Order: sequence, then structure tokens, then C-alpha cells
Amino acid sequence: MHPLAFILGEISVSILVVGSLALDTVETPFGSVQDAIGGSAMYVSAAASYFVTPIRLVGVVGGDFPAAGLAFLEGRHVDLEGLQIIQEGKTFRWSGRYHYDLNVRDTLFTELNVFESFDPKIPSKYKKSSCVCLGNIDPVLQRKVLDQIEKPWLVICDTMNYWIERKNSELRDTLRLIDVLILNDSEARLLSKEPNLIKAAKVIRGMGPGIIIIKKGEHGALLITDQMVFSAPAYPMENIFDPTGAGDAFAGGFAGWLGRTDDRSEENLKRAVIYGSALASFCVEKFGVDGLSDLTYLQIQDRFREFRELSRFEED
Amino acid sequence: MHPLAFILGEISVSILVVGSLALDTVETPFGSVQDAIGGSAMYVSAAASYFVTPIRLVGVVGGDFPAAGLAFLEGRHVDLEGLQIIQEGKTFRWSGRYHYDLNVRDTLFTELNVFESFDPKIPSKYKKSSCVCLGNIDPVLQRKVLDQIEKPWLVICDTMNYWIERKNSELRDTLRLIDVLILNDSEARLLSKEPNLIKAAKVIRGMGPGIIIIKKGEHGALLITDQMVFSAPAYPMENIFDPTGAGDAFAGGFAGWLGRTDDRSEENLKRAVIYGSALASFCVEKFGVDGLSDLTYLQIQDRFREFRELSRFEED
Repeated sequence: MHPLAFILGEISVSILVVGSLALDTVETPFGSVQDAIGGSAMYVSAAASYFVTPIRLVGVVGGDFPAAGLAFLEGRHVDLEGLQIIQEGKTFRWSGRYHYDLNVRDTLFTELNVFESFDPKIPSKYKKSSCVCLGNIDPVLQRKVLDQIEKPWLVICDTMNYWIERKNSELRDTLRLIDVLILNDSEARLLSKEPNLIKAAKVIRGMGPGIIIIKKGEHGALLITDQMVFSAPAYPMENIFDPTGAGDAFAGGFAGWLGRTDDRSEENLKRAVIYGSALASFCVEKFGVDGLSDLTYLQIQDRFREFRELSRFEED
Repeated sequence: MHPLAFILGEISVSILVVGSLALDTVETPFGSVQDAIGGSAMYVSAAASYFVTPIRLVGVVGGDFPAAGLAFLEGRHVDLEGLQIIQEGKTFRWSGRYHYDLNVRDTLFTELNVFESFDPKIPSKYKKSSCVCLGNIDPVLQRKVLDQIEKPWLVICDTMNYWIERKNSELRDTLRLIDVLILNDSEARLLSKEPNLIKAAKVIRGMGPGIIIIKKGEHGALLITDQMVFSAPAYPMENIFDPTGAGDAFAGGFAGWLGRTDDRSEENLKRAVIYGSALASFCVEKFGVDGLSDLTYLQIQDRFREFRELSRFEED
């Protein structure tokens, strides 16, 4: 049983995560890893699993995907019925190098492998998923997922520069079906063609998603709806070991909290942004998915409260 | 009488501002101004004057400084006894162009004129100033000011890349005498040689100032002491007309609030950062000093509360 279940009772919400599963080779100033398990769906699922279980995962790996990767997902209460394993294929691989200033990274190589022909098939028991998290994949595939789901309560979507530039009209078609778009500041500027982030969010809201979250890395995140702007602080980290997956851990924590509480009110959206930020902060403290492997309820709550202390001030 | 005086009673704190007075020629995507009154001391004084009056100003202008500039300062209750007017000289001039993305600006020209030989002389009645605000000027001059002041309660200092690179050892000598150093993120990284801002602040605290404020423009500000990190949000502005002076308005609002309340507690430092942010947000809404010309107590309080709303969240 999930530790939070003792406190918050039974959960009726189901979370479906669709995205990439990868083997990442990452260099940072503090060390490197080779073929570590990763991918957007891996990080989103792991983070969300601290709030709602089981997480429903749809993705694809090759026969080379390590058993330890499957064991990690199972350990995080992730249902693997939607995982396609193509025995004769190779898993998607990504390699990146982070600079001394961890805000800057170079992609060393990308090998799509089995991901190139990924065709997300939603198992029939997942078709009634209340919350759908679309990881950063081709917007055509994102839409294909949504076509298979019966009236989800909430659709959360991530995207990236690559799709904004190469598949803009397909992305715009997908955005019409989205409730929450999570993107970083440079992506928001690129998508909206507007340097001012508040205006950018307004432009993007006009494309469909009512709720925009702009991640700003070391500067925190903005949550923007038609009614409010909420500015979430960044956790003051002196030691970021590996930024890989932080954005996905954010999305997973955000989705997980909303799913668990079954509450889309503005006050609760703010909390979800803080839980997302908390999971992202745990993620970057260790290499790969290690930071999301064995957190406790108390740790997550403590970090939530640290975020509150960080930004709290009172009138005298 | 100052409008706040009704509410908060008599003020015993005196604020001394030393810095540049300038004629600014500024181009932004929204318009341009020529030879508008400006300079660090102008913006710091104007912002601080909403909290403590009279502000004591030490600076230098040429005979070409417009009477309207002096009238503006007098209208803001700035005591001009320390203002040197060199009739035969020309006022310091600065010209800059802001890009469509207002985070980027080019300096078009700088003419030091009378500022080149500025030798700050503190009038005897200013020598017992409780709070000293050192605008962004040569660290040798900053130190010369402090040598003339009797045990100030608080010394606040601004600096910039130019002095960090060209007068590093002189700046380090000045920093030993400073309580609060206000600088932007790139300056903090340059001074500390550390890309991580939390570590950078720790390094800079080792140079003398116990309180570090790192301004991050559209991303807000960090306040860092030995006991805490406080993350202040940025005001979500859709329309920034002219970013000139925002950093100085921040310093003035910060100093003004601390001076008025005569309270250096951590809780009050946080409030001061928010008042500083509020004054900076008013500053950039209009060209030049216009945004600081006729605010009311209610406007400043309202904006303070807007900042609180912007970052407030509660546990459920």
C-alpha cells in the first residue's frame, strides 16, 4: 500500500503516462553514467507514483532494456500492461553533456531506435483514465493517445523546441485538446513569438490550454490561468548532480498531486506546482532516476514546507 | 508632511544616498527619450523618499542639468545640500538601447563629464546618517564616502560588472565595510566565480557583506543571509516601458523600508525586498523617473499585497 494512502484515503483517480523510455548516457561536472534508465515516461511515472498508484504507463523499449529498469518501475507501482517490448529492437538512446553551469547542456547523440516507429496503443482497461500525462513526444502521437481515451478529467502535456519548430501545425492541433501545457521559458517564447512571459502565456492560452506552466529552471516556475499568476520559487540547491529528468519529475509530481486530491481549484493548482517543484528538486540531487527511487511521505511533505518558508512573508 | 508619516509616526532614521546623476538618452521598442533626468542617485532617492524624508543626496551635475530635475528631487523631499553643481561643466550622460526582449540592452555611449572627477564630500550635517546607500560608482569613491560617516546603522551597496572586472581589489576593500550588497545574477557569478547562485552568495558573504540580494530581473530576487534564503517573485508585468533605473529603485525601496521601520530582523528584510521590488515595478511602468514621481501610500501598499498574492500558497 502506498504510504500516502493511510493519510488521504482511497484514490479513485487513475493516471496514464505516455512518453519515452530511454537509456541515457550523461556527463556532468560531477560524474557520468552510461545507459542509465530514463526517458520522459520513466521520470513522470516515478514522480507521480508517490501520489497515485498504480501509474498506467504506455511506452516502448527494445530487448536490451535492462531488467533492473522494469524492476524499478514495478517497485514504483507502475502498471506495465501498456509497455511494448520489441525483443529484436534497441531502446531509444540519448546522450548529453552538462556544462559547469548546469543550465547549459549539449546533446551528444540521439538514437531513436524502437522509438522511431512508436505507435502508442492504449490497453482497453486504460481507456477510462481520468488524468492523462503526455510526455514530450511527437504531437501527432500525443493526439493519437487522446483519440483513444474516453473524456479524461485532465490532460497534461509537455513539449519542446523540436516540435514547436518542426511540427508546429500538428502541435497546434494537439494543443486544442490540452488542459495544462507545461513548457520552459524559451519554449514559451518560441511557441508564442512573444518575449514577455506573461504575454506569452496569454497567447498560448489562446491556442487551447487553459492552464500554462512555465518552468524557469533555477528561477522556479510560473502558473498562469485566466484568473491568476502564481510564482513558485526554485528550491535553493547548492548541489545539482544531474538535471536530467527534472522537468518530467515536475510534471509527474504536479499530475500526481492533482490526481490524488481530485481538485482543480486554483489553490490546489498552486500546491500541485509546489509538489512538482519538490519532486524535481529530489530528482536532480542524484544521478538519473535515483533521486526518485525511495522517497518517503515525510520527505515530500518536509520539502513542500521548505518551499513555503522560502517564499513566505507577512505584513508587519 | 509625508503621507506615510500619519500611519507610522515620526522617523528618526536618516538615509544618505551617494551616486550618479545623469541625463539619459534611452531607446526602447515603445519610444525614446533624450537627456531625461536619471542616474543611480536619482532613482534611489526617489524610491526611498516614499518611506523616509528628507533623503540626503550627494552627487554632482553640470550647469546643463535642467531646473526641472532639481524641482523633481525637491518635490520628492530630497535635501540637496550635498549636490555639487559645476556650472562650467556638463552632466554625466548615458545612452542605451533596449531590444524587443527588454532583458537585453546595448550601451550606445557614456560621457562621464563632471562625474569623471567626482569627489564625494559629505556635508557635516550628513555625517551622522544612519543608513548609507552607495549607488553603483567607483568602489574607491564608495569607500571615501564611508570614511566620512560616523558608525552608520546600515550600509547598502550596489556595484556592476565594470568595477568587478576593472577594480576588483578596490571593490574587495569596500565590501569589507558593507552590510548589504545588491547585485544582479551575472554580477554575482562574476564576483564569486561560481555559477550556482546559492554558492555564489555564500562566497560573497565571505568577502564582508552579511546580507546578499541577487536581482534576477523578470525572475525576481533572492535574499540570502547566514540563516535563510528568501525568494521574492517578480511582478508579472505585461508592459515594461523602460527598464532604466529598476535596480536603483529596488535599492531605494529596500533602504527606505528598512530605514522607516528601523528593524533589521530577517522578517523585515524580506518585507524590504518586497517593497524594493514594488518600487522597481512602478519604475519600469513609465519612462525614466516618471514611474516614481507621484505614487501614493495606497498604491505602494496595494502592490505589496499583490506580491503576497503572487507567491502565497497554503497546505490544504
